[in-house]
Amino acid sequence: MPIVELHLLKGYGAEEKRRLHEALTSAVRLVVPAGPDAITVMIHEMATEDYSRGGKHRSGAPALPDPVDIVRRFLSAMEAREIDKAESMLAAGFSMRFPGTKPMSTLPELLDWARPRYRFVGKTYEGFDALQGSDSAAIVYCRGSLSGEWPDGTAFSGIRFMDRFEIEAGRITRQDVWNDIAEVRAQA
Amino acid sequence: MPIVELHLLKGYGAEEKRRLHEALTSAVRLVVPAGPDAITVMIHEMATEDYSRGGKHRSGAPALPDPVDIVRRFLSAMEAREIDKAESMLAAGFSMRFPGTKPMSTLPELLDWARPRYRFVGKTYEGFDALQGSDSAAIVYCRGSLSGEWPDGTAFSGIRFMDRFEIEAGRITRQDVWNDIAEVRAQA
Amino acid sequence: MPIVELHLLKGYGAEEKRRLHEALTSAVRLVVPAGPDAITVMIHEMATEDYSRGGKHRSGAPALPDPVDIVRRFLSAMEAREIDKAESMLAAGFSMRFPGTKPMSTLPELLDWARPRYRFVGKTYEGFDALQGSDSAAIVYCRGSLSGEWPDGTAFSGIRFMDRFEIEAGRITRQDVWNDIAEVRAQA
Amino acid sequence: MPIVELHLLKGYGAEEKRRLHEALTSAVRLVVPAGPDAITVMIHEMATEDYSRGGKHRSGAPALPDPVDIVRRFLSAMEAREIDKAESMLAAGFSMRFPGTKPMSTLPELLDWARPRYRFVGKTYEGFDALQGSDSAAIVYCRGSLSGEWPDGTAFSGIRFMDRFEIEAGRITRQDVWNDIAEVRAQA
Amino acid sequence: MPIVELHLLKGYGAEEKRRLHEALTSAVRLVVPAGPDAITVMIHEMATEDYSRGGKHRSGAPALPDPVDIVRRFLSAMEAREIDKAESMLAAGFSMRFPGTKPMSTLPELLDWARPRYRFVGKTYEGFDALQGSDSAAIVYCRGSLSGEWPDGTAFSGIRFMDRFEIEAGRITRQDVWNDIAEVRAQA
Amino acid sequence: MPIVELHLLKGYGAEEKRRLHEALTSAVRLVVPAGPDAITVMIHEMATEDYSRGGKHRSGAPALPDPVDIVRRFLSAMEAREIDKAESMLAAGFSMRFPGTKPMSTLPELLDWARPRYRFVGKTYEGFDALQGSDSAAIVYCRGSLSGEWPDGTAFSGIRFMDRFEIEAGRITRQDVWNDIAEVRAQA
Repeated sequence: MPIVELHLLKGYGAEEKRRLHEALTSAVRLVVPAGPDAITVMIHEMATEDYSRGGKHRSGAPALPDPVDIVRRFLSAMEAREIDKAESMLAAGFSMRFPGTKPMSTLPELLDWARPRYRFVGKTYEGFDALQGSDSAAIVYCRGSLSGEWPDGTAFSGIRFMDRFEIEAGRITRQDVWNDIAEVRAQA
Repeated sequence: MPIVELHLLKGYGAEEKRRLHEALTSAVRLVVPAGPDAITVMIHEMATEDYSRGGKHRSGAPALPDPVDIVRRFLSAMEAREIDKAESMLAAGFSMRFPGTKPMSTLPELLDWARPRYRFVGKTYEGFDALQGSDSAAIVYCRGSLSGEWPDGTAFSGIRFMDRFEIEAGRITRQDVWNDIAEVRAQA
Repeated sequence: MPIVELHLLKGYGAEEKRRLHEALTSAVRLVVPAGPDAITVMIHEMATEDYSRGGKHRSGAPALPDPVDIVRRFLSAMEAREIDKAESMLAAGFSMRFPGTKPMSTLPELLDWARPRYRFVGKTYEGFDALQGSDSAAIVYCRGSLSGEWPDGTAFSGIRFMDRFEIEAGRITRQDVWNDIAEVRAQA
Repeated sequence: MPIVELHLLKGYGAEEKRRLHEALTSAVRLVVPAGPDAITVMIHEMATEDYSRGGKHRSGAPALPDPVDIVRRFLSAMEAREIDKAESMLAAGFSMRFPGTKPMSTLPELLDWARPRYRFVGKTYEGFDALQGSDSAAIVYCRGSLSGEWPDGTAFSGIRFMDRFEIEAGRITRQDVWNDIAEVRAQA
Repeated sequence: MPIVELHLLKGYGAEEKRRLHEALTSAVRLVVPAGPDAITVMIHEMATEDYSRGGKHRSGAPALPDPVDIVRRFLSAMEAREIDKAESMLAAGFSMRFPGTKPMSTLPELLDWARPRYRFVGKTYEGFDALQGSDSAAIVYCRGSLSGEWPDGTAFSGIRFMDRFEIEAGRITRQDVWNDIAEVRAQA
Repeated sequence: MPIVELHLLKGYGAEEKRRLHEALTSAVRLVVPAGPDAITVMIHEMATEDYSRGGKHRSGAPALPDPVDIVRRFLSAMEAREIDKAESMLAAGFSMRFPGTKPMSTLPELLDWARPRYRFVGKTYEGFDALQGSDSAAIVYCRGSLSGEWPDGTAFSGIRFMDRFEIEAGRITRQDVWNDIAEVRAQA
């Protein structure tokens, strides 16, 4: 039965509101054992002239981009080896860790590391989870399986992976990657 | 500036409300680039007699337990080898995958699998992330590093891990585990 | 999906609120084709000190009694020939019309009129409908069938009737009665 | 002092809202002894994108037609002997009872029954009352007086009647009629 | 943290709303020790068709003009000796008192009184305060210092003054003036 | 028709709420030409656990004292020559100006200034006006007439005065006084 009302300055589009409806519904469900249909969300928009804090009007900021969408586009660019495009999605201070690596801060470092490990790799996604972290970063988890070719040209597939991203102000600040490649190679 | 109002049947305690305040605040921040202090949440409670759907009163269900708390207690029990206690926290139909394993459904299976791999293992937590999934399961991510002893008695530490849990109605339905053990062993 | 919020001064009991929930739900359904379950009503109570009009506090008046309940008790008293009790439920200026009568203003008038018509009569109720009139009177419709004995002692039953009552401030101000007695007698 | 707020999806016209204002005001007055001027109703409309249940948008259904208007048009058509037009306003499963009749389901049945009783009959309305029934039917009461000509050509007038209608989804499902014709004829 | 919501019929402009935001914020601050930034005001506008009292729509009245603006324009007109313009801003029944005068009701009376006192006088404003009185008049206080020339042609300046105005329906109904002219002359 | 809703943390007493009702009603009337009875104010209280900003609970601060009450008590103490009591009501940095004086900062300065001017003086109040200034000070205007004895023992009365006070955090920070004493003496 919970009913959520969100008062918001005008300026958010239908897609951005849809993300708010979903996020608020999920927030309630994390605590209240209500079926999703039992949760109602109403967004009330206000014109700038209808809202004040301290007697002064405020202007609304543009919505943050969907962090899942950012991650999807980044992973696609990486898979297609569009390194410049991928690079443009990273924040200053970007940091990344892959299995067994030290923190790396540029994509060429990653490519150097990967070269002796596989010729190429593609991702099949099983699911994405996104949430807001306690600080200003949004967090996106992406999991699924890897397929590709080992350096010797033999194919592999079905290797589990899990990526964790942090995104601030629309840029990726951190990527952490786990996968079963070493496990599979050890078993091979 | 967003203001969230949540209308709720009476019966939720201060700690449960705190979780709602945090979850609703995070939900808004995932889309609206407001500093956390700019987001206000108000919970309005109603007595049963003040709420109706279809002209009929409804009663509120007890809050769901905090899924992060469930995961913490489960991992503690596992680390302390309190298998019965850990088992009691699993739902019927529980499924679990570790690096390189097929899906397992009982803790003894896991213990069998782990025995040749390490004498014991402890976890240092770097962080927990919790969110509501799109179906009725809450999802908890837990990451950090492993330390323990290899079967030969030598110690290890600082090995990254990532666990993903699904929790329904207060019981764990699924656990997926990634870590760098094989990577580290391969490098050794 | 309609959601109704009612702001009310404190002082209404659970049964009075139940009547408000039902009446508000029905009011919406008269216009909006929503299943009853799709209509939510929330009552928000206020203490006297929390409400003002013109900067001055107001006190809430006690709820009006349920007009259907008044009609039921009046009809029971009449059927049991508890004339004093029934009389006490009438407002000054009470007016009543039965089939073929002029307006009557006292119950003895009615008894005189009824004497040559039937020895006694009882009512089986098929339904009550209550609504607020456009002025200050509540209106109650009561329909069903009559059974009893004609003056010659023969029994009758299943004769349709319809009563319409107006109630103000808890007293009956008007009663209009229709039934098929004459029709049935004519067919006999 | 009661204040009613109704949250509604966009799409209802001014006349439909007027009916909601009146119905909600009456609903409150049935329980709270407030003068009509003391009751405030505010309708808050929402665009589809601003409302969700279960995180999913819903679309609002067109308003139900005014049931009093349907009854007025039906009675006018009957009086003008526009039987096809009147017939088109009936729901499948329509049922009707007049004084002394069994349930009838078509208008020709009614005309057959009426032929030996009066040449024609017209209605002068004293008032209409409409309310939502507890199931999905709206209920309309119509009362007033009949005038017309008996089969022998003599005129009559001032005979009380009461009609009760049930309307679902804009069609009449049931009509129950009471009047004093037999009473008047018996007295003649 | 206080949050004020104002429900208002449509028709007020941005400047009129700004005055409402400020006045409501100040009203709260008079009692609640919150920094201004902690006070949020939201105005919710309604179309005529969305608001009713007693089931009947009402139309909103145009906003009252800013009383400070009225006083500023009146004082400017007086200083520029645009007596007709100033006169047009006075209500019937206007009354005015200056230091040592009886109540005067026309501007020529004032000019006669002032003639032997100074050749001309100008005002430097230190501040305006406006509030609603307990009856229908708005009250404006204006304070600052006077400069000008005495009848003998010598200049003066820096003499404190305080004016109090009452304004009803956009017209000045009363002016009370205090200043230190006599004090300064006595000291001279 | 305006309706004001104020959301407030619990902890304000009936008298403090009465001041909020009055101040909010007046705030609306300064702009909207509604009779006072047309303005409704509803205060909605929240427990600490029901309110958050930035996901964190806040505690409400005690209400500010009524500034008119402070001024009344200060003026009474001055009139009764309870200098210590009056002094205790002043803020550090207090400043005060009387007709013809430079700014003074202590009450003894004032007493020295007044001694050659009158033996004693009492105030008859015509009215108080209070409002919140644009910074954190509340402003109180007090006007009326003075009566007392000149230094030579002759009595005076009916001399107009106007006092303006600024109050912060319950202490008087500034007093500005105007009156017609010099005017009256000059006319004598």
